[in-house]
Amino acid sequence: MTSKSFMKKITVIGNGGWGTTLAILLHKKGYAVTLWGADASYVNCLLEKKENVKFLKGIPIPEGISITSDISNKLMDAELIISATPTPYLRSVLTKFKGIFVHGIPIVSVTKGIENDTLMRPSAIITNVLGDHPISLLLGPSHAQEVARGLPTTVVASSIDGNLARLVQEVFSTERFRVYTNPDMVGVELGAAMKNVIAIAAGICDGLKFGDNSKAALISRGLVEISRLGIAMGSQRSTFSGLTGLGDLITTCISPYGRNRWVGEQIGKGKKLQEILEKMEQIAEGVWTTKSVLALSHKFKVEMPITKEIYNVLFTDKNPLEAVSNLMMRAPKSEIEELI
Amino acid sequence: MTSKSFMKKITVIGNGGWGTTLAILLHKKGYAVTLWGADASYVNCLLEKKENVKFLKGIPIPEGISITSDISNKLMDAELIISATPTPYLRSVLTKFKGIFVHGIPIVSVTKGIENDTLMRPSAIITNVLGDHPISLLLGPSHAQEVARGLPTTVVASSIDGNLARLVQEVFSTERFRVYTNPDMVGVELGAAMKNVIAIAAGICDGLKFGDNSKAALISRGLVEISRLGIAMGSQRSTFSGLTGLGDLITTCISPYGRNRWVGEQIGKGKKLQEILEKMEQIAEGVWTTKSVLALSHKFKVEMPITKEIYNVLFTDKNPLEAVSNLMMRAPKSEIEELI
Repeated sequence: MTSKSFMKKITVIGNGGWGTTLAILLHKKGYAVTLWGADASYVNCLLEKKENVKFLKGIPIPEGISITSDISNKLMDAELIISATPTPYLRSVLTKFKGIFVHGIPIVSVTKGIENDTLMRPSAIITNVLGDHPISLLLGPSHAQEVARGLPTTVVASSIDGNLARLVQEVFSTERFRVYTNPDMVGVELGAAMKNVIAIAAGICDGLKFGDNSKAALISRGLVEISRLGIAMGSQRSTFSGLTGLGDLITTCISPYGRNRWVGEQIGKGKKLQEILEKMEQIAEGVWTTKSVLALSHKFKVEMPITKEIYNVLFTDKNPLEAVSNLMMRAPKSEIEELI
Repeated sequence: MTSKSFMKKITVIGNGGWGTTLAILLHKKGYAVTLWGADASYVNCLLEKKENVKFLKGIPIPEGISITSDISNKLMDAELIISATPTPYLRSVLTKFKGIFVHGIPIVSVTKGIENDTLMRPSAIITNVLGDHPISLLLGPSHAQEVARGLPTTVVASSIDGNLARLVQEVFSTERFRVYTNPDMVGVELGAAMKNVIAIAAGICDGLKFGDNSKAALISRGLVEISRLGIAMGSQRSTFSGLTGLGDLITTCISPYGRNRWVGEQIGKGKKLQEILEKMEQIAEGVWTTKSVLALSHKFKVEMPITKEIYNVLFTDKNPLEAVSNLMMRAPKSEIEELI
């Protein structure tokens, strides 16, 4: 594997808020960074304004970062790839890069979702499309705006290859961006995806003006059902108590930047999904993840009452007040039964 | 044990925001409620204004609730006692009631703290002062203002006596106030107390304008150290993932009503503890709980880095920026090691 002293060139695939933030962070650490975006006209906008006005407002993009929508030989010599495309576009975007990268160079996946038709996690989609590259995840409670503004953030590098996880830790760590390692890739990737479903539920609570007692109860129960599915799928319980489980769940549910929480809030206020999504520049992964998680809950025969109600609200037009009331007001029983 | 059909008279000891809220909830359910407060002049204010202006602003107190500062024979025939006095005053207040209640009537403790000198939990203080009464806890994410305004809330009744826990569940449950049971009294009572320490840390993050990434990381790590001490003291790990662990921790750390979070925020902004406490009407239990939890961590030889730093900020004048930076920016390592 390439070691840091020799690794210089990094390509970030995806010029959303998070891809741009990571490109800036790596550039500041001295790497030669290429930021790739699929949309040529928006890439030109970035080049012109030196700012990602849609997705990372107010943060200047340093001169030294190469920004492009070309897929040319220049990308071939990248020594590390960051895959930062939202799940719904991930497969089609990666397909453009087939045969471009040197075989065996590591890929870091920072996408939080689960593909609808295949129920694949992003790391599996990467392998499926690009073949057998060593993969590490880099996930955790990390709103792009806060990282870009240098606020203290902690995330997790996860790989079945411990050396790669430690390399990623070394490449990304700064004084204000701390990277822990965790070998449980399944748990890390599932937690990061599923929290967006619970965030929609938390947002609905906000929209209905249900208060923090309700929201906290929903987050707690949300973590229980996330863990339940994760364990059935082979991950470690402890991962869900960590940064990519509980940590990311909390950030997503409380932060004003949370897009999925925001979608839920609008729904709680009575708006319809279609009109909400039409007005959004960025993608709310949780909407699509809800479909995948419900399918996984059937496949693994795991009870997920929150996911089910949120699915009904999003896709079968169930009344959000009725859905959240159902969740909050189920017949009282023992807490222990609930938690198993 | 008294069953609901025969139980009519309930006395609430403590006329703070939570005691008053529970008195109103029980009155609306048809119980004959006496709300007792230690301060005669403030009790007169309640009687006059029919509102708890200091601790539960804007919520009318129904006529039917008997409000008193007397300890008279009238209190002797209570069939259920709610103990709702903050920990620092609990022992001295209960001492006034020695010999007043019928032997063997159940007591419900709703206090969240740990006594400084004895390191006793509130339920132990009750037994210590009043002798051998059956005790249930009623704890969870339940800001008084939200419960009083009828926002959906879920809490836990915990007793080693399952029948008592179910009785408490029956007595308190309403459409919008759901009561679960959990037999792990130690875990339920410890979680409810210790979350106030982490809330101070979360508040410091807010005061320093550290953002939601930091706050979520701190809450996650906070739950880890709470669980670690709890397990060492004999409680169940799963309790800390429940409403009185994670649930109450989240509410306390995010809610604008959180007094402990608020104290932390002021400290983060550079104010001194003494001046903050002098201006507060209500008690911030977490300040005193921090002392007890640090002592317990030494007694049970459990590492509690957040509690230690918060103790230093509160009582040894450590700079809050330095303390929280220390916590956030420790040398990166494996997440799994951290979580054990």
